[in-house]
Amino acid sequence: MATPDLPGGRQSDASHPIGVFDSGLGGLTVVRALLDRLPCENILYFGDTARVPYGIKSVETISGYARQITDFLLQRQVKLLIIACNTMAAVAYQAVANRSPVPVLDVIGAGASAAVKATRNGSVGVIGTPATINSRAYARSIGELNRRIRIYSQPCPLFVPLVEEGWLDHPVTRLTAAEYLQPLLAKRIDTLVLGCTHYPLLKPLLQEATGPEIALVDSAEAMAEITAELLAKNRLEAPRSAKTDHHFFVTDRPYRFQAIGEQFLGRPMNHLKIVRW
Amino acid sequence: MATPDLPGGRQSDASHPIGVFDSGLGGLTVVRALLDRLPCENILYFGDTARVPYGIKSVETISGYARQITDFLLQRQVKLLIIACNTMAAVAYQAVANRSPVPVLDVIGAGASAAVKATRNGSVGVIGTPATINSRAYARSIGELNRRIRIYSQPCPLFVPLVEEGWLDHPVTRLTAAEYLQPLLAKRIDTLVLGCTHYPLLKPLLQEATGPEIALVDSAEAMAEITAELLAKNRLEAPRSAKTDHHFFVTDRPYRFQAIGEQFLGRPMNHLKIVRW
Repeated sequence: MATPDLPGGRQSDASHPIGVFDSGLGGLTVVRALLDRLPCENILYFGDTARVPYGIKSVETISGYARQITDFLLQRQVKLLIIACNTMAAVAYQAVANRSPVPVLDVIGAGASAAVKATRNGSVGVIGTPATINSRAYARSIGELNRRIRIYSQPCPLFVPLVEEGWLDHPVTRLTAAEYLQPLLAKRIDTLVLGCTHYPLLKPLLQEATGPEIALVDSAEAMAEITAELLAKNRLEAPRSAKTDHHFFVTDRPYRFQAIGEQFLGRPMNHLKIVRW
Repeated sequence: MATPDLPGGRQSDASHPIGVFDSGLGGLTVVRALLDRLPCENILYFGDTARVPYGIKSVETISGYARQITDFLLQRQVKLLIIACNTMAAVAYQAVANRSPVPVLDVIGAGASAAVKATRNGSVGVIGTPATINSRAYARSIGELNRRIRIYSQPCPLFVPLVEEGWLDHPVTRLTAAEYLQPLLAKRIDTLVLGCTHYPLLKPLLQEATGPEIALVDSAEAMAEITAELLAKNRLEAPRSAKTDHHFFVTDRPYRFQAIGEQFLGRPMNHLKIVRW
């Protein structure tokens, strides 16, 4: 994915925050990668916890929700929007980009770009929720970058519930992973895209299931890299001296979000607010 | 659970339909049991597929949704309301009953009543989603009927995703069931309440995991029995001669609902409409 230039006439300010949004808390893996890679940036995170999960809803419904969140973040003067939800990226990227005067990055573009760089034999596997896989968004995005790459996809509907159950290193998860990955391994992939923001938490178990020869592409890390490039290219990096703030907005159950979210984030969450829609 | 009498002054008509509602399609196991037990009844089913699952939302949010669905069904002249969703029954029964001039039955009351009848040694296990178990609604409901029964509860967050994945007879589901049920079996329960409308589809696998000595209480079947009693007691049984109709309303993804729903129902779904809220 090429890093987009800013549209002409846009009043952007390097001190403004980055807006990151997701249907729930999975997008916090992207925030974590951003905090590690870009520690001076301010972040506004929006998690639509009242309406999660999006993966089982229609394109029309998901696009409506994505537009509503985009407006919420744009009103708060973000300099960049990051769609940290594979489902929204897959079906509503254009709806978001159409109303945004600031650049829009998404986890699918980031993961596709990293997969193209990682593969040596040209066989790439993609795992994700049924909505993401059925949208064929990774296949399209990888195909636009390199038409000769063969892409094998596998929906893994049980991985999100297994992560949320906390069974990150459990025989049930190992058996489930073996079953889901078997058809991809049979195709001799050398790269596996973790096409869901929950999956980085399963990375050690998945690497064990694939063996060390297969490269795992974590789209959260890929996103942090692409964000750093875009900010540098457009001279939008936050000033180093300023104090940083990270604000989190959710639509329901803030305490559950905070409890699980701090595990995803690996640090405390100081500014958390509930938005009632 | 005692079968409630109709409040005084209520204009009820035996030819009116029964209103059944759920957060999604799980409640169709209750509809199936009703169709088998009461083949002359008309049914209106409401599945809130745009906002499913409810189990991870707050009490306040769930109660608001339940009131909205109640009004929708009451406007369509139902003679009885059945809350076929354990989560709504656990946290919003009173909110529904407060605005309903017709009787309200719910799956928790039905399951609790059947469990009290089934147990011989007074040790009952209850499995359900985290929201249902944390609400302690089954424990309260069983305790009201017989204070001497000992109740052991176990949340099983992976069972709904496993049913929706179609892994009804799969090694992963067997291993998951063994892990979830182990603490209950250690308490020497003789009765196990399936406290979620998805779980009847796992009945053969669960019976295998518990062994044949433990009675499984299927709240869909219990609900059909209690409904039959209430209708007979209040002379509200549908006339035998009339043609029956079953109408289904959903808030999103009607095709997915129909495809999976017809498996739950074991017959075709002829009248299905989408409601946009």
